[in-house]
Amino acid sequence: MSIRTANEECLRRIQQGAAVWTGVRQAREVVPGMDEHTVLHAGPPVAWAQMCGPMRGAIIGASMFEGWAKTPEEAVALAERGALRFDSGHHHHCIGPMSGIITPSMQVNVVRNEPFGVDTYSTLYMGIGKVLRHGAYDETVMAKLRWMNHELAPMLAAALQEAGGIDIKAIVAQAVQMGDEMHNRNKASNPLLLARLAPHLVSVAERADAIRALKFIDEAGHFILNMVMAGCKGILDAASGIDDCTLVTAIARNGHETGIRVSGLGDRWFTAPAPMIEGVYFPGFGPQDANPDLGDSAITETIGLGSLAMAGAPAVVEYVGGTPQFALETTMKMYEITAGENQAFKLPSLNFRGTPLGIDIRKVVQTGITPVINTGIACRRPGVGQIGAGLTAVPMACFEQALEAFAAQRAVAA
Amino acid sequence: MSIRTANEECLRRIQQGAAVWTGVRQAREVVPGMDEHTVLHAGPPVAWAQMCGPMRGAIIGASMFEGWAKTPEEAVALAERGALRFDSGHHHHCIGPMSGIITPSMQVNVVRNEPFGVDTYSTLYMGIGKVLRHGAYDETVMAKLRWMNHELAPMLAAALQEAGGIDIKAIVAQAVQMGDEMHNRNKASNPLLLARLAPHLVSVAERADAIRALKFIDEAGHFILNMVMAGCKGILDAASGIDDCTLVTAIARNGHETGIRVSGLGDRWFTAPAPMIEGVYFPGFGPQDANPDLGDSAITETIGLGSLAMAGAPAVVEYVGGTPQFALETTMKMYEITAGENQAFKLPSLNFRGTPLGIDIRKVVQTGITPVINTGIACRRPGVGQIGAGLTAVPMACFEQALEAFAAQRAVAA
Repeated sequence: MSIRTANEECLRRIQQGAAVWTGVRQAREVVPGMDEHTVLHAGPPVAWAQMCGPMRGAIIGASMFEGWAKTPEEAVALAERGALRFDSGHHHHCIGPMSGIITPSMQVNVVRNEPFGVDTYSTLYMGIGKVLRHGAYDETVMAKLRWMNHELAPMLAAALQEAGGIDIKAIVAQAVQMGDEMHNRNKASNPLLLARLAPHLVSVAERADAIRALKFIDEAGHFILNMVMAGCKGILDAASGIDDCTLVTAIARNGHETGIRVSGLGDRWFTAPAPMIEGVYFPGFGPQDANPDLGDSAITETIGLGSLAMAGAPAVVEYVGGTPQFALETTMKMYEITAGENQAFKLPSLNFRGTPLGIDIRKVVQTGITPVINTGIACRRPGVGQIGAGLTAVPMACFEQALEAFAAQRAVAA
Repeated sequence: MSIRTANEECLRRIQQGAAVWTGVRQAREVVPGMDEHTVLHAGPPVAWAQMCGPMRGAIIGASMFEGWAKTPEEAVALAERGALRFDSGHHHHCIGPMSGIITPSMQVNVVRNEPFGVDTYSTLYMGIGKVLRHGAYDETVMAKLRWMNHELAPMLAAALQEAGGIDIKAIVAQAVQMGDEMHNRNKASNPLLLARLAPHLVSVAERADAIRALKFIDEAGHFILNMVMAGCKGILDAASGIDDCTLVTAIARNGHETGIRVSGLGDRWFTAPAPMIEGVYFPGFGPQDANPDLGDSAITETIGLGSLAMAGAPAVVEYVGGTPQFALETTMKMYEITAGENQAFKLPSLNFRGTPLGIDIRKVVQTGITPVINTGIACRRPGVGQIGAGLTAVPMACFEQALEAFAAQRAVAA
């Protein structure tokens, strides 16, 4: 197949992909390969010895949530003696923001790409502040985790069943016209989700439980993010494994390395050290507190959201830094390294042009332009949480390695 | 006082004004001068003989809702023999979209401008399609009106009491950064309102009633519009009556005439024939079906929303016509005829510049630029409803007359 034909097929699959939030289930029941003591994490594979603080903290919290360990020390001992089976969530149809830790007892969102028969999973978004994904595991975090898993999740599952699912892609399409870029700004999409969900939550839950859930989802601000991430992955996974295709199907960071996957190169990761983030810090924090780039959330950029959709989200610069002009220029630059435009995500300010879609490793290497990522900044110390937000980029080395591998593969095939 | 000082005082009062939705009450209990057989309508005063089709239809429906008439013919007879006391809602702290009919038994939103001690009233938004404000009064409309007044209104009143009021100005400020211009596009503000209201609705209402209310508010799409209009009027009324001030404090249309009021010219109206609207028609309708410009909703333009905020709402052109570039140009042109910028309503796409605020009758006459209005198009036949949306302008004659009156008043004072 010609590269052009392969890339067009990849774009076609992405454009035709769907993302419907169909349910909430326990990970061990639905996630493939989720055996006992399995611990899935964000980004490409990484060993305990290389894991960053927030990821280690989240694993400690998850081990206590599972009952594998009673204390943080016991959890660390388990990890150190190899009793935990670590793997990248990406290898199990899973995805998660920041440390992205998923263990068997956790409840996960199920998001379906029906045209391609793909289900993808993500944990429930816990809110901001002290949360598991940032490596916090004190009793307030553990109590919230138990409430979300034992009370909120069954409510959501029942509400979704009554609703017949909620179309996440449709909400994103609308929110992109309302100034959300979906990675760091979900100010439109989160209330849109709540409006769809609320009548069903009220219908299936006791009054006090429904009120608590409604307030939690509203105040969490980004509750929809985890369903969006699962939706993006489900659509991109269906566009993976196309021979001769040079388009990127995943960008993910584990806090140690940033990795990309390319449709024509199967499940391989092309990695480089995770960069630091240039950004705006919350009061009391600075660059010395920051963890390198972390989390699977750059899957949004991979599908034409996040920094690629910034031109339609000028207000996000108040959060990640920069100016509205910079936001516009970022999107315009991303058109130079992409193969198409996302027909579902149209930017009114660009006369309803679709967002840049399909990062082409050839164009990245040729132009020297690397994909920008809008992202949160995690504290390098476990348990502190988010300390800012800003901008970073996928290291050029990832694309160079991928392009070399692509050339080698073509040479073998020829 | 110098005109400059007077206009600055006017802007100061607008900037400091508040708009909190504090309750829902029966009009006869709270609206000043709401005696039996009082019928308040949109725009400047107009007699039955001159009223347009939608306004007459709404009055027929309201008369049957009140029990003043059993049939449309009886209602028309009442109006014709002078048994109904018509007045502009503006003279009674009231405001309403399209025909804007308010009668004593109707439940009204109460929106408070606390710093200036002003309460303003508007009916509950009925949704789109066949609705009273467009002059529909068949049994489906009357049943909906009864449900809204007898069931929804008490629920909202109880929810607002529990919530301690909902800050409408804060929601608008947020929504302006999410692509709402608030006159025709409420896609962000309506779900934001719902997110704030939902937990309280669920708390005070029976389950089935809460579900019906949540779905209704979501599907109505513009439910927040009537509270926004009341909020705008409450803020602008507090900025009225400032001697030597040349800024416009109301723009309103009754379907026969468009009228403006000016802060330094008290309660007087300066009117001209209501213009037609250039716009996009719903399938099956055209200009021959259109009513002249109608409704109090141009109060949004008066405070720097609507067409004045279009640069931040490029997607509204899909509804009212034009291009995103035209939306930008419209806002930029409005800066030429305004005295300041609304500090609460900031446009991210213009680097967070405030929307144009304070239409100055001198600048309008001097530049020849009249304020643009984004608005719905009503069918001229009662009961059909909205048939499109588009753009029109306030007639220049309104400003010329006002400026003459202003000059005459200054001459007398000097």
